[in-house]
Amino acid sequence: MKALEEAIQQWGEGIGTSIVKVDRFLNHRIDTGLLTRMGREIADYFRADAPTVILTVEASGIALAITTAQALDNIPVVFAKKHAASTLRGEMYAETIRSFTKDITYDMRCASYCVTASDRVLIVDDFLADGEATRGMLSLVSQAGARCVGVAIAIEKAFQKGGRTLRDKGIKVLSLAAVREIRDGKILFQEG
Amino acid sequence: MKALEEAIQQWGEGIGTSIVKVDRFLNHRIDTGLLTRMGREIADYFRADAPTVILTVEASGIALAITTAQALDNIPVVFAKKHAASTLRGEMYAETIRSFTKDITYDMRCASYCVTASDRVLIVDDFLADGEATRGMLSLVSQAGARCVGVAIAIEKAFQKGGRTLRDKGIKVLSLAAVREIRDGKILFQEG
Repeated sequence: MKALEEAIQQWGEGIGTSIVKVDRFLNHRIDTGLLTRMGREIADYFRADAPTVILTVEASGIALAITTAQALDNIPVVFAKKHAASTLRGEMYAETIRSFTKDITYDMRCASYCVTASDRVLIVDDFLADGEATRGMLSLVSQAGARCVGVAIAIEKAFQKGGRTLRDKGIKVLSLAAVREIRDGKILFQEG
Repeated sequence: MKALEEAIQQWGEGIGTSIVKVDRFLNHRIDTGLLTRMGREIADYFRADAPTVILTVEASGIALAITTAQALDNIPVVFAKKHAASTLRGEMYAETIRSFTKDITYDMRCASYCVTASDRVLIVDDFLADGEATRGMLSLVSQAGARCVGVAIAIEKAFQKGGRTLRDKGIKVLSLAAVREIRDGKILFQEG
């Protein structure tokens, strides 16, 4: 998506060889108009797959999940939790996730009423790198007996294995921007 | 807001004397259409105050902040962070917050470029109880030298002190639903 690549070039920051910092418009300060257009782009791509619910994980996937859901006739959004909450109880799906960027392990959780066996789930997230968060969400979908119709990502780090792993499994993946390489602070995109 | 009160009655759960659980439509699974209408209601109430940025805190304030920002001509959203991130560095505003529901202390942080001295900030959050999170956000606004034009809340627990404290300071507050009491699992609203 041209507008997203332009925003990354203008406001993003490449750090080292693997970090794309987009805190200025995507996951700390949010460009609301751009996020709304990104949601529409995802919705157009997956509309024919008739998703019934969007699944994301807190915190930075929520904004894009909402704008995508709006463009799909206001289907519900579920955000899986990373942190225990006093109100999160009852039957639950859970999966242990390793975050490579933060070097921690956490339990991703979702109450069982959030996703049911008849659901067609569209997974939405801000980043796809090693694919751990996506693997966790696919596990929640599978525990619910539901079907995943696709995975939509704002920024894929194409030099890490997450995207390839999903596509090898036959999962439909849309990345609005795919970063090929970070070199000398420059963020280089994949063609096409 | 009638639609929100009805959703709370239908899907919400009163636990003990102080917990209002709204995981089924507001802060775990989200009713996208309702959230969009709630954002419009907040926008209508504060439009004349000409906010230039929405400030919220991760995670469950983000969805409502986005739909409010959309209804205010796509002004940007900033969500303060509760957790350290490898990319969060540079000049920062911070405030230590005590969460009574979770019985923990955390540092609420926001990069200094997110809010500037000329900003008119509208604070948005899902709950207002003791007002700790709001106090933290007001502190971030003040550290930035900006002005807070108001506080918009989905659900105020009117039996706790947060709302009163804000109004006593002369801050314009909108609660879309104000819970007066939780008794025998029943959630009772304030009139008007």
